Amino acid sequence: MIKVSVVGAKGRMGSHVVDAVNNAADTELALALDAGDDLTQITPGNTDVVVEFTVPSVSLDNVLALVAQGVDVVVGTTGWTDEKLDQVRAALAAAPREGQSVFIAPNFAISAVLADYFAKVAAPYFESAEVIELHHPNKVDAPSGTAFHTAQGIAAARKAAGLGPVPDATETDGGSRGQVVDGIHVHAVRLRGLNAHEEALFGNDGEQLTIRADSFDRISFMPGVLLAVRKVSTGAYPGVTVGLDNFLDL
Amino acid sequence: MIKVSVVGAKGRMGSHVVDAVNNAADTELALALDAGDDLTQITPGNTDVVVEFTVPSVSLDNVLALVAQGVDVVVGTTGWTDEKLDQVRAALAAAPREGQSVFIAPNFAISAVLADYFAKVAAPYFESAEVIELHHPNKVDAPSGTAFHTAQGIAAARKAAGLGPVPDATETDGGSRGQVVDGIHVHAVRLRGLNAHEEALFGNDGEQLTIRADSFDRISFMPGVLLAVRKVSTGAYPGVTVGLDNFLDL
Amino acid sequence: MIKVSVVGAKGRMGSHVVDAVNNAADTELALALDAGDDLTQITPGNTDVVVEFTVPSVSLDNVLALVAQGVDVVVGTTGWTDEKLDQVRAALAAAPREGQSVFIAPNFAISAVLADYFAKVAAPYFESAEVIELHHPNKVDAPSGTAFHTAQGIAAARKAAGLGPVPDATETDGGSRGQVVDGIHVHAVRLRGLNAHEEALFGNDGEQLTIRADSFDRISFMPGVLLAVRKVSTGAYPGVTVGLDNFLDL
Amino acid sequence: MIKVSVVGAKGRMGSHVVDAVNNAADTELALALDAGDDLTQITPGNTDVVVEFTVPSVSLDNVLALVAQGVDVVVGTTGWTDEKLDQVRAALAAAPREGQSVFIAPNFAISAVLADYFAKVAAPYFESAEVIELHHPNKVDAPSGTAFHTAQGIAAARKAAGLGPVPDATETDGGSRGQVVDGIHVHAVRLRGLNAHEEALFGNDGEQLTIRADSFDRISFMPGVLLAVRKVSTGAYPGVTVGLDNFLDL
Repeated sequence: MIKVSVVGAKGRMGSHVVDAVNNAADTELALALDAGDDLTQITPGNTDVVVEFTVPSVSLDNVLALVAQGVDVVVGTTGWTDEKLDQVRAALAAAPREGQSVFIAPNFAISAVLADYFAKVAAPYFESAEVIELHHPNKVDAPSGTAFHTAQGIAAARKAAGLGPVPDATETDGGSRGQVVDGIHVHAVRLRGLNAHEEALFGNDGEQLTIRADSFDRISFMPGVLLAVRKVSTGAYPGVTVGLDNFLDL
Repeated sequence: MIKVSVVGAKGRMGSHVVDAVNNAADTELALALDAGDDLTQITPGNTDVVVEFTVPSVSLDNVLALVAQGVDVVVGTTGWTDEKLDQVRAALAAAPREGQSVFIAPNFAISAVLADYFAKVAAPYFESAEVIELHHPNKVDAPSGTAFHTAQGIAAARKAAGLGPVPDATETDGGSRGQVVDGIHVHAVRLRGLNAHEEALFGNDGEQLTIRADSFDRISFMPGVLLAVRKVSTGAYPGVTVGLDNFLDL
Repeated sequence: MIKVSVVGAKGRMGSHVVDAVNNAADTELALALDAGDDLTQITPGNTDVVVEFTVPSVSLDNVLALVAQGVDVVVGTTGWTDEKLDQVRAALAAAPREGQSVFIAPNFAISAVLADYFAKVAAPYFESAEVIELHHPNKVDAPSGTAFHTAQGIAAARKAAGLGPVPDATETDGGSRGQVVDGIHVHAVRLRGLNAHEEALFGNDGEQLTIRADSFDRISFMPGVLLAVRKVSTGAYPGVTVGLDNFLDL
Repeated sequence: MIKVSVVGAKGRMGSHVVDAVNNAADTELALALDAGDDLTQITPGNTDVVVEFTVPSVSLDNVLALVAQGVDVVVGTTGWTDEKLDQVRAALAAAPREGQSVFIAPNFAISAVLADYFAKVAAPYFESAEVIELHHPNKVDAPSGTAFHTAQGIAAARKAAGLGPVPDATETDGGSRGQVVDGIHVHAVRLRGLNAHEEALFGNDGEQLTIRADSFDRISFMPGVLLAVRKVSTGAYPGVTVGLDNFLDL
């Protein structure tokens, strides 16, 4: 049984994590803390892994404190910069327990992480590639960070394989061809009813490959969170690890 | 048996029409003519309906000559303007046979014609709507005329129903949101391996409707051509008719 | 302002209806009643339309009582038989107000209702047609009633148009070709993460038409409920009306 | 420049291979032979790699003869059994040149090979998985060999990861749930207009991953054929190699 404490337990994500930890056969909930609660209650004695889902303004301090208390941390809060990561690395170097881990993921949805990876693997084998992302209309940025990242990965994989630019005879266009990210066209759809969806399309003469990831609900992040908890609890990932793909057998 | 003559019989479309006429149970091929052949061979005695698939520069003259010879014409050649249509109407008024027909269609693909129609019918019932078209990368214009037309139809149907603009909170975008046609976002994908494809997406809270038409090959126009031949041969459509939707039971 | 009372207001659907009535610009909540509450509180004085979302075992009695009190009713509860409908018709004949309405819908999702309608319209124009429905894996029946209904509608439309059986050269199959409903193959997918989804696929040589309806969440029924409330409140639908398609401009 | 001879050069596949070899920048056509032509014209002096696309009844003899003449062979003909492969291995052991290669692929479509591979990689991370294949209605077997193979791969990957059966509460079904291959449901659609298409669907709570491969035309096999020619010509694959996945960087 892996003992898991949750920081940010009353938040939108944290409350799902509490449920997921309670429902999984190999995890049990230790402490469920939220803003205002005393983090020093969390110790190696009662907790194997902490899941931290709060807000960027407090996450770094939370993680530094938890590292100093000797526990491993899985972080779902966004907003991590290289400078912040360096502070965490320094804290880990001075941590009380040897081989302590901090794991940070920009995206815990396994379907999205796999789609991003598959797009990179497929890219060298196709003449054409484009990315379409579809989200709810309340999203303020376009395209999504995930789609941007996927397009960059496709472009890098094409370049590494010696591929030239994608074929495109377009002469007249009023903007319908979308945004070009490192040579890859990216399209963003905003539609009421959707949540977060991404398609990578690849084409050769006579064939197409489509990889699509749909996230209908934030509960989709829970298998990724539990996977990270299990991996971190093994002690096999000392230091800072970024990205769920490190825990998938790819 | 409907006796069909084909003008432009050696062209990419015309050769398919010859095959289609030969294969259908209720049509038979009368004359198959191409550039240089004498159109006056085609008479009401040997031909019920002529299918004309040539090029814009000769199509008007062909149609005027055929009308003067007393036969009905189904036209697949593009490039028709209001002025040209008026010339055909004048020719029909002076035609030898009463109730002669000329039928002209910008698109003979039944799937595309139905998708365009369904999009207009669905539009008033959804908060969001966007259009994605996908074509081969040799296409020089973007978006496709069909997608442009579909977006216009959606916009008009929304307006008639009293709907306001589609919801969109986008603040930062580098072009990924596509081209806006009468308030409807249109995206154009260019991918090797594709031919001509269109999706109309509609969304409300918790639901989505998607209408997609795929044309994999120009043979997809043949059911539409045969439908037009059958309808015109009934004599029920005197004068000029434009658009295959007139022959569908919508 | 249309005054709406909700019966079954604490249920999964009813609570959404309360929110929808509160949020719409042209409706206001009158009474929100649930099991054990006194239905006689609802009168023509305080309520224009009642929305009834309860369970089959009590719905008929609720509707009969509400009709006797002189109010119009929109019913989302399932389980209606011809016999039950006759009882409602009899109650309406003896109702205190002239022209009272009861509206009953098996499905309030506009996307599903439109998809079902479009499938019937498209069916005569394609050589092939199949239906795929996809649902969450807790569903006990397969295929869904909606998919069964769509297949029946396609089959009837093909028959009316004089089409023969769909082409199918299959000689060896271990069950992958699915269930045959009136000659139309229906496939049911069960996948964790999905809710209720349906695709109707149509094909001719070189072309495909796909109509897909996705219901991600029961909130997707609210636009249909509000539409029914608005239509019923006009007084233009006296008697019993079954099916949301009666209120769409099709 | 890789010198390529084609055996079966007038066949449906072979004629595409001749064009592909002529069009690629790094290959040139040596000899184009068909039924009745003398295979002994093909020698290490004029040919680096032979592409053999004929029929199962003559393919083994062709390959044995070509091996004896000292050339490498890429085989697209189907119908290979373990016994036939052993005969090729014996021929290679007695071949005139050291390190000679014979490469055989059941499927040269890169999109299909990648989809099959991605499905195996993704399978351990999802609670649910199903396979849908869609083909033209003249196909006599259902499901396709490719879909069967994909389902087997998914099942094996799930088993290796310790996953139990997919969730499925279905109690009543008339066949819509499809064929069960090693515990994975497989659905086969037959639709006029389609060629060969396959979807692998994966689901967790709140998320879905879809991998789709479309083969619109047999020209889609050419990139795979050229890839095999290039790989074999390096001399790095002595002996018999089966499956295009061996040449992809997976």
